Amino acid sequence: MVQAITSMDEDFAQWYTDVVLKAGLTDYTSVKGCMVIKPAGYAIWENIQRELDRRFKETGVENVYMPMFIPESLLQKEKDHVEGFAPEVAWVTHGGLEPLQERMCVRPTSETLFCDFYANEIQSYRDLPKVYNQWCSVVRWEKTTRPFLRSREFLWQEGHTAHATAEEAEARTEQMLHVYADFVEEVLAIPVVRGRKTDKEKFAGAKATYTIEALMHDGKALQSGTSHNFGDGFARAFGIQYTDKENKLQYVHQTSWGMTTRMIGAIIMVHGDDNGLVLPPRIAPTQIMIVPIRQQEESVVNTVEEIRARLAKKFSVKTDFSDKSPGWKFSEQEMRGIPTRIEIGPKDIEANQCVVVRRDTGEKITVSLDEIEEKMAEILEAMQKDMFERAKKHRDAHVYDARDYEEFKRIMLEKSGFVRAMWCGDEACENKIKEDTGATSRCMPFEQEEIADTCVCCGKKAKKLVYWGKAY
Amino acid sequence: MVQAITSMDEDFAQWYTDVVLKAGLTDYTSVKGCMVIKPAGYAIWENIQRELDRRFKETGVENVYMPMFIPESLLQKEKDHVEGFAPEVAWVTHGGLEPLQERMCVRPTSETLFCDFYANEIQSYRDLPKVYNQWCSVVRWEKTTRPFLRSREFLWQEGHTAHATAEEAEARTEQMLHVYADFVEEVLAIPVVRGRKTDKEKFAGAKATYTIEALMHDGKALQSGTSHNFGDGFARAFGIQYTDKENKLQYVHQTSWGMTTRMIGAIIMVHGDDNGLVLPPRIAPTQIMIVPIRQQEESVVNTVEEIRARLAKKFSVKTDFSDKSPGWKFSEQEMRGIPTRIEIGPKDIEANQCVVVRRDTGEKITVSLDEIEEKMAEILEAMQKDMFERAKKHRDAHVYDARDYEEFKRIMLEKSGFVRAMWCGDEACENKIKEDTGATSRCMPFEQEEIADTCVCCGKKAKKLVYWGKAY
Repeated sequence: MVQAITSMDEDFAQWYTDVVLKAGLTDYTSVKGCMVIKPAGYAIWENIQRELDRRFKETGVENVYMPMFIPESLLQKEKDHVEGFAPEVAWVTHGGLEPLQERMCVRPTSETLFCDFYANEIQSYRDLPKVYNQWCSVVRWEKTTRPFLRSREFLWQEGHTAHATAEEAEARTEQMLHVYADFVEEVLAIPVVRGRKTDKEKFAGAKATYTIEALMHDGKALQSGTSHNFGDGFARAFGIQYTDKENKLQYVHQTSWGMTTRMIGAIIMVHGDDNGLVLPPRIAPTQIMIVPIRQQEESVVNTVEEIRARLAKKFSVKTDFSDKSPGWKFSEQEMRGIPTRIEIGPKDIEANQCVVVRRDTGEKITVSLDEIEEKMAEILEAMQKDMFERAKKHRDAHVYDARDYEEFKRIMLEKSGFVRAMWCGDEACENKIKEDTGATSRCMPFEQEEIADTCVCCGKKAKKLVYWGKAY
Repeated sequence: MVQAITSMDEDFAQWYTDVVLKAGLTDYTSVKGCMVIKPAGYAIWENIQRELDRRFKETGVENVYMPMFIPESLLQKEKDHVEGFAPEVAWVTHGGLEPLQERMCVRPTSETLFCDFYANEIQSYRDLPKVYNQWCSVVRWEKTTRPFLRSREFLWQEGHTAHATAEEAEARTEQMLHVYADFVEEVLAIPVVRGRKTDKEKFAGAKATYTIEALMHDGKALQSGTSHNFGDGFARAFGIQYTDKENKLQYVHQTSWGMTTRMIGAIIMVHGDDNGLVLPPRIAPTQIMIVPIRQQEESVVNTVEEIRARLAKKFSVKTDFSDKSPGWKFSEQEMRGIPTRIEIGPKDIEANQCVVVRRDTGEKITVSLDEIEEKMAEILEAMQKDMFERAKKHRDAHVYDARDYEEFKRIMLEKSGFVRAMWCGDEACENKIKEDTGATSRCMPFEQEEIADTCVCCGKKAKKLVYWGKAY
């Protein structure tokens, strides 16, 4: 049998590491803090890319590619931005055998490069808006790393836009947050809270950062996608101006937004179980694995191939004719999270049927071979829906309301999950809560409620409902 | 009118620069030697990626992602390889605020990373073959750069495979060269010569390098894709061994192969003309642009939209309702290389027809609106075919045979193109030819002929027919 993994209830962190390695998603490398993304992991990222890219383009996004290096003087042009990123960048100091005249960092994010580009590219209102995106890797010199969740290099997309008006920039910032939220809920089957970051938690250089926050199986939060409104701050720092219809010089208003390979970590930590990975059908590189029973029999070979060919017209389907036992194959495919397997043996063929097994529930469904296409469509669709509902139920069961600080601390100590509590708007309370409980403000949800009048921490008048949590 | 560009006959290098900039493919950046690839350029790369990736996967290739950094000790493991690349890499020496214990280069190519990975990943013959590829950017610290053709950072794919036997590695090396050749000929409409590099010109660390060589409009050669057989050289340097079926330890045999964004430069230099870029229909991001004539009339708006919707089911099609004159739009779309434009005005609508203009020939074709889908398919297919034939005719007209050194030098001085000449196999003759004429050996074509008995340079017994040329 496939080697067992640590139980998630026993040691969630070890369970996570076991799954990423045993499911063949990633592995460590000789480059400290950097991972290799193996075929099973990269195929998930390719599906994320394809689906997100399609949704981006429907909103008018165009893809570009910027240099991976940022000269130090360029990084320093926006004060808050450089303060946020300079401590964690990798510096290139030599090109070939010569020292560089000016050192350059490997991009941790590309606001400064896009601004430098837009300053030349944008002259008139006719050049606006610019709605550009790039798919690339970025580098942040983290001290402690974990596969997919935090590594020194990771893959992502970063959108960077420039608009004529503040209103347009704000609308684009929110639009992209909803593109992320819809994608994560509809395709990854992960429910999210949509909201705004507090000033303490916002992006370095942003006027406002919006976020989607997901809850992992262990009750910790994962920031899953962010969208930033920069106002005209970067435009002033970089001199990005256009001539409007009245022939007046104006600064542009900018946004940026990104989603990363950490979403593969989210899929694992929301849907996985003690048998390994569980992939939502809409993101699974292989949706159906057909396992022949008594594969030495010609009728089995022929039927499996016939069914595969029929299903391949609508689904991504593979067959496993390796020389392992069926039991071994079952365990292996469960570990890899393949949504469904179909078992076909001589007795099934005689009865003109097969057995379909759902990865999420283990449910076995007998299906007539005549209607295999329709039934697989139904089963995969039901599984996608059930996985979302199950994740939502789990999330909702781990959202707690706290009305005073003792209650807040007790919940944070005894439970794991999101705590909803009112906040006065003061960063001092965020700092105190972090110090006392380890929790940070995850977001001020768009859907505000007033569950109390006073700040859960200091007791002063409350301004906002905040989701708090311990985060990855 | 759109600003005119330099004529290609007058100054080919300036014409090239004018086209890349005016067609909106790329621009310079503040990062010396690095370019931005703008939407019109990146969309071509996306199409190259999609089509190549599909062809790769049909041969069993799986995509992965490796770190972008290579620790210095890893780069040094294979002697020839480090000698070839160390002089032109960018070095990272600091991470965050601390100096690194060991400096790392930004990958110029990833053989060493894949080898390090395979050394852990491959244990048994059951783990073979590994046929992995990655899409990424690489960095080579070039002194002189030109957009797409030679820049300090460029995008590419690099395939890296490991096999049980030398025969299998050789077969994969050749297979991938033919994948490249077929792609370039069928999709980019560029004829290529398939052959093997001489030892002097092969990849650092390779046993054999195969190449496809294309001829640009100015008669210079462009190396367009290479595939390398490493034998077991890297495997011995990195200790990549597997246990065979007889339980004996064996070294693997490896290959690598790559194609880059310089192919966008090839498209420009093979197909472009004095009006700008000309894109082969199969690679064009927009295949058809519909230009309304008298766009203020409602019947024109409605018909254009109806035709667009019908064509959009089979082609990538756009409409241009901007407030420029039709003549300006024509020039602009010609500059951008859009394969066909459709003109529709009130008189056309009355006659239930439209005018289709081919970008390559300027030919105007009157087409009934009733059969617009079939006719556009025919026109685009004919254009793709004609563009290849035209490029091939031009290439063939610039291939010269030389039987003695005086003739060789005279052709190299007076003409531009490929010179076919016999070679003794001695590197000294390659060096002398380079010094005397500036030409290098481009390849020893798979299709060998014996056009003379003796080496064109030294007069000793000839071993191989070689294509010589001045190269980008």
